[in-house]
Amino acid sequence: MSVLIVGSTALDSIKTPRAENPRLLGGSASHAAVAASFFAPVRLVGIVGADFPQKYLQLYRRHKVDLEGLQIASGKTFHWSGEYEVNMNNRRTLATELGVFETFTPRLPASYQDTPFVLLANIAPSLQHHVLNQMRRPKFVVADTMDLWLNIALPDLLKLIRRVDCFVLNDSEARQLTQEDNLITALKKIHKLGPKYVIIKKGEHGAILSTRNGGLFLSPAYPLPRVVDPTGAGDSFVGGMVGHLSAARGSIDLNLRRAMIYGSVVASFCCEGFGLKFTDRVTRPAIEARFKQLAKLTKF
Amino acid sequence: MSVLIVGSTALDSIKTPRAENPRLLGGSASHAAVAASFFAPVRLVGIVGADFPQKYLQLYRRHKVDLEGLQIASGKTFHWSGEYEVNMNNRRTLATELGVFETFTPRLPASYQDTPFVLLANIAPSLQHHVLNQMRRPKFVVADTMDLWLNIALPDLLKLIRRVDCFVLNDSEARQLTQEDNLITALKKIHKLGPKYVIIKKGEHGAILSTRNGGLFLSPAYPLPRVVDPTGAGDSFVGGMVGHLSAARGSIDLNLRRAMIYGSVVASFCCEGFGLKFTDRVTRPAIEARFKQLAKLTKF
Repeated sequence: MSVLIVGSTALDSIKTPRAENPRLLGGSASHAAVAASFFAPVRLVGIVGADFPQKYLQLYRRHKVDLEGLQIASGKTFHWSGEYEVNMNNRRTLATELGVFETFTPRLPASYQDTPFVLLANIAPSLQHHVLNQMRRPKFVVADTMDLWLNIALPDLLKLIRRVDCFVLNDSEARQLTQEDNLITALKKIHKLGPKYVIIKKGEHGAILSTRNGGLFLSPAYPLPRVVDPTGAGDSFVGGMVGHLSAARGSIDLNLRRAMIYGSVVASFCCEGFGLKFTDRVTRPAIEARFKQLAKLTKF
Repeated sequence: MSVLIVGSTALDSIKTPRAENPRLLGGSASHAAVAASFFAPVRLVGIVGADFPQKYLQLYRRHKVDLEGLQIASGKTFHWSGEYEVNMNNRRTLATELGVFETFTPRLPASYQDTPFVLLANIAPSLQHHVLNQMRRPKFVVADTMDLWLNIALPDLLKLIRRVDCFVLNDSEARQLTQEDNLITALKKIHKLGPKYVIIKKGEHGAILSTRNGGLFLSPAYPLPRVVDPTGAGDSFVGGMVGHLSAARGSIDLNLRRAMIYGSVVASFCCEGFGLKFTDRVTRPAIEARFKQLAKLTKF
């Protein structure tokens, strides 16, 4: 089944101690869409400016991403630039130029409104709402977020959390949202906000899935000897996860664990190159090989 | 088979925002010995002062810990006092009174010298050497350490690492030792220092086992909704691990993964009470139940 993905579509300029990489394809929706495309047909909702490079449209198309929902507006594409420290753990934003994103209103083409799986990748919660409002009756809705929205749009975000089946956030965001340091207790508090499934991403430490009935799954991260650029890893994780989920037969409960592992695998590839450079070239057999390796790495 | 454990035997005064707990039974050897005792007979090597409470000797005996190697010297027992912050992640030392530990020279009773499994729990590397020098031909030697010895006794520690089968340290110590931020790369560097097996403990994020041939195992930590006191969790982990290893049939390679899971389980119980209060009352069926739960929590 298809996956509809809304989020940011951006140009990222990423500086590390070793290299500068200007105007890479980035944004939560770009990473999530390419990650999901390995498993299922993807429908993209986003906006880019007139300056958006043709080669990036070609990249989307190479991954068979449906671009009917991608608005190309006059103006500049959202541009983020940031810098990583030597250890790749600390990132600081150098500049954020919203460009055409400033006035973005997602409009869903008629052909998108019946999409069964929806991923509301990281973007303002008001826009995530706006997309959901245009959907008919999606089978499964996942929303990701970031600390920015906890800081400046919490009421919108809380309303959104109530509307989704699965809410995804990282460990520090979970602590901020619940004022609770212990993640297991934080998960319980987040369920009270509405969603049946909650996933806390912990970067190199993997992720935890919690279901409302108290079930937990500890998902490992694929161990990498070298991280080139972790930008977009979290988006790749949710993208790969929802992509696999939409393609798998059987119940969500049954498939979510394996879907998270697939998400971890795509996220690991994402970390091995700048922007989408490495993910773009990944093959399905390479994904399956790492999936099997993760099974071996955790078996006891 | 039996396990010989050397390390510190101490009284810990632990302050948290909620409670003060003066003079609990603590020290790396105490935690490791009780943890190992659930799986195998334990022989303890350590020193306490004349002030050491009888009830703690009884605690050891209740867990069938052989105390022939425990010296009771005139003077005061090693006393550590520390304080945890609200989130239980940051600990600061308030006072360290070495007492009889200052002049401790481990002397192995003749009956200990053939012990097949040896755990050199956290203590000065010179003392770990001293114990190894008195052993005949142990089947398997595990050493744990702490940042203090990296700072003040690195040459001794490096010599020790060469002599052990399995070296255990935590993530920040691994980074400090190798000057390498990436843990997978750090593991490779530590193998070059000698040991066939290296384990990096990551606290609530579990542990990673690496074997010299490049094999990895990602061991989960048991998820706890409330951590009362993490003091001794790392010691419980290695104690439980070596205890199970010494009791299991078959090759080390085959058993080490399951042994780590048992170690994680005992460490989780350790975190649920101050000092050894909770671990002391744990039963083997409770350990088996958490072992099975961890299998379920990680299955995909």
